[in-house]
Amino acid sequence: MVTFLSARDIACVVSEVGARRFWLRLVDYLREDFTRWDAFEKSPRYASHSPGGVIELMPTGDGEAFAFKFVNGHPGNTKLGLQTVIAFGALADVATGYPTLIADMTLATAFRTGAISALAATHLARADSKIMALIGLGAQSEFQACAFNAALGVDRLRVFDVDPAAVDKFERNMADFGVTIIRCADAGSAAAGADIITTITADKRYATILEDDMVAPGTHINAVGGDCPGKTELARALLLRSEIFVEYAPQTRVEGEIQQLAADHPVTELREVLAGDRPGRTSTEAVTVFDSVGFAVEDFSVLRLLRDAANETGVGRQIELIAEPANPKDLFSLLHPLDAEQEDAALLLSAKQTA
Amino acid sequence: MVTFLSARDIACVVSEVGARRFWLRLVDYLREDFTRWDAFEKSPRYASHSPGGVIELMPTGDGEAFAFKFVNGHPGNTKLGLQTVIAFGALADVATGYPTLIADMTLATAFRTGAISALAATHLARADSKIMALIGLGAQSEFQACAFNAALGVDRLRVFDVDPAAVDKFERNMADFGVTIIRCADAGSAAAGADIITTITADKRYATILEDDMVAPGTHINAVGGDCPGKTELARALLLRSEIFVEYAPQTRVEGEIQQLAADHPVTELREVLAGDRPGRTSTEAVTVFDSVGFAVEDFSVLRLLRDAANETGVGRQIELIAEPANPKDLFSLLHPLDAEQEDAALLLSAKQTA
Repeated sequence: MVTFLSARDIACVVSEVGARRFWLRLVDYLREDFTRWDAFEKSPRYASHSPGGVIELMPTGDGEAFAFKFVNGHPGNTKLGLQTVIAFGALADVATGYPTLIADMTLATAFRTGAISALAATHLARADSKIMALIGLGAQSEFQACAFNAALGVDRLRVFDVDPAAVDKFERNMADFGVTIIRCADAGSAAAGADIITTITADKRYATILEDDMVAPGTHINAVGGDCPGKTELARALLLRSEIFVEYAPQTRVEGEIQQLAADHPVTELREVLAGDRPGRTSTEAVTVFDSVGFAVEDFSVLRLLRDAANETGVGRQIELIAEPANPKDLFSLLHPLDAEQEDAALLLSAKQTA
Repeated sequence: MVTFLSARDIACVVSEVGARRFWLRLVDYLREDFTRWDAFEKSPRYASHSPGGVIELMPTGDGEAFAFKFVNGHPGNTKLGLQTVIAFGALADVATGYPTLIADMTLATAFRTGAISALAATHLARADSKIMALIGLGAQSEFQACAFNAALGVDRLRVFDVDPAAVDKFERNMADFGVTIIRCADAGSAAAGADIITTITADKRYATILEDDMVAPGTHINAVGGDCPGKTELARALLLRSEIFVEYAPQTRVEGEIQQLAADHPVTELREVLAGDRPGRTSTEAVTVFDSVGFAVEDFSVLRLLRDAANETGVGRQIELIAEPANPKDLFSLLHPLDAEQEDAALLLSAKQTA
């Protein structure tokens, strides 16, 4: 039997664990996985391109568990009332090859994206950072806000979106989280006075959401929206005066803000900072940039946490994702209708496993 | 909502459609997919090797649907009472990237393996073939027997396995299928007088199950067991006097019987025969070999049939594999507990979809 977690189940897991505690654990799982970087199999994702979009399989593993994520990207989906990006993923036991968890990953990806940003900021933002600008209030915005609130105590948000309805939605969703929300007229005024600036806009183009002169010394920029070839958010000049941190340099040079820079422009991988091998922020005056594009290890971490938390809380359903014949050499017996006695035994076993 | 089919559901689909009709449809789906070969994305499988075995992701697609299979291979699993190979797979809609089906593929792989052998034999075996030798009576054996019975009318089986319990199991499972089973003392006597010889033994080594002198002119050999590097079943001399047919030459040269031959030894791809571009059997005296190793397009075909047959029969369960927020820009709303009215609306919608 394999544990299946729908988005609803994941919401239930988070609620059972407690949202704040869930965020802190996720940051811990990410830190743990990023500091044992060499344990992970890092392979290029498999991408199947079509006129309407892309479908990707992103595998990784640490030698104990194997994970993969199925994820798409279809810009035209919104016209059909569908989501642009959906995802699901699975974990398997490397020792036996048996899957242990299959889960929706639309919600899980939103969690890990927020948590990796918060983890990076605990090492890159100034220690006294309490004010964050949030530019772009789409699907990921509340997750960023919650992650930074839980991990850094960020409690004032200067927010901006070109769509006022998105700001309304954000305010509604964050109503119970004890944060102060300041609606700003544009990106520049959101950035003014912020310790941390999170950019997370949706436009698929080389955009400049943050101009160089909008950013004060000492700011940490959490650049989340620029995450694929041809999509950026920061002015090149701003990058050139910043200390830049990435998840995995070969991938970020293709997909991140630094696609605007020379292929040998110096960057630091977050794991090097976490391991103590390289410094994070070097001075209170430096501008730091976390150029986040999302990486397979992060999917691994969140699946691992969901598996553990589902076991602890008993949330989720057991499904027969794989055939389990009584005798592995007798697969064909699965085609026979069970007799009444076998049926009762199977039901009893299933009930016991669920209980 | 995504359709989920467990092995039990697949057994139910087969029973609803009718076993014979299911086999014939699967052969048709395979023929259809193999004759539009160029429509398929053919990419190397992703393999993650570990001391205990291998986990693979096998993707493919025809531009309309995308499929992938998760499959392992862990020889030590039998000691733990687990299966050596288990699998599950999924289909997605290329136009939107949304998954449509997730299914157990242990049983489905057994079906497609039997059906591709039967499809090949309809073109490669002599037209009057009614007697098949089956050497190796493991998990795949009954599937081969049923496929050949449905597609070619093979009704006499000369069977051998080193383990008498395996023969007992085979006889038990095939009791209701109207075939005559002849227990043979060894591989040679099973092969004697057979029109078709199916080899499907389990030993992971360069074995010689079929010696050259065991095979009469005009025989078709369905070589299924030799399916990975270092695992073969046929004598090299036998291959050298045979007309050899494969699924996909680059893969079979690594995994199949022909790993024993020179890299440029002439072989014919089954799809060329199906398309009428190359002959199948050239004379009644020729020995033909279908060197089957299993190919991603076959997984695609069986998933496609299961999707269609599940829709027709209503078998299977709808699961929330992916999050479906009412507003795609408001993913965070999934974390709010639904109010009573929303809950009722969701339940009603779900009930209607299931009905």
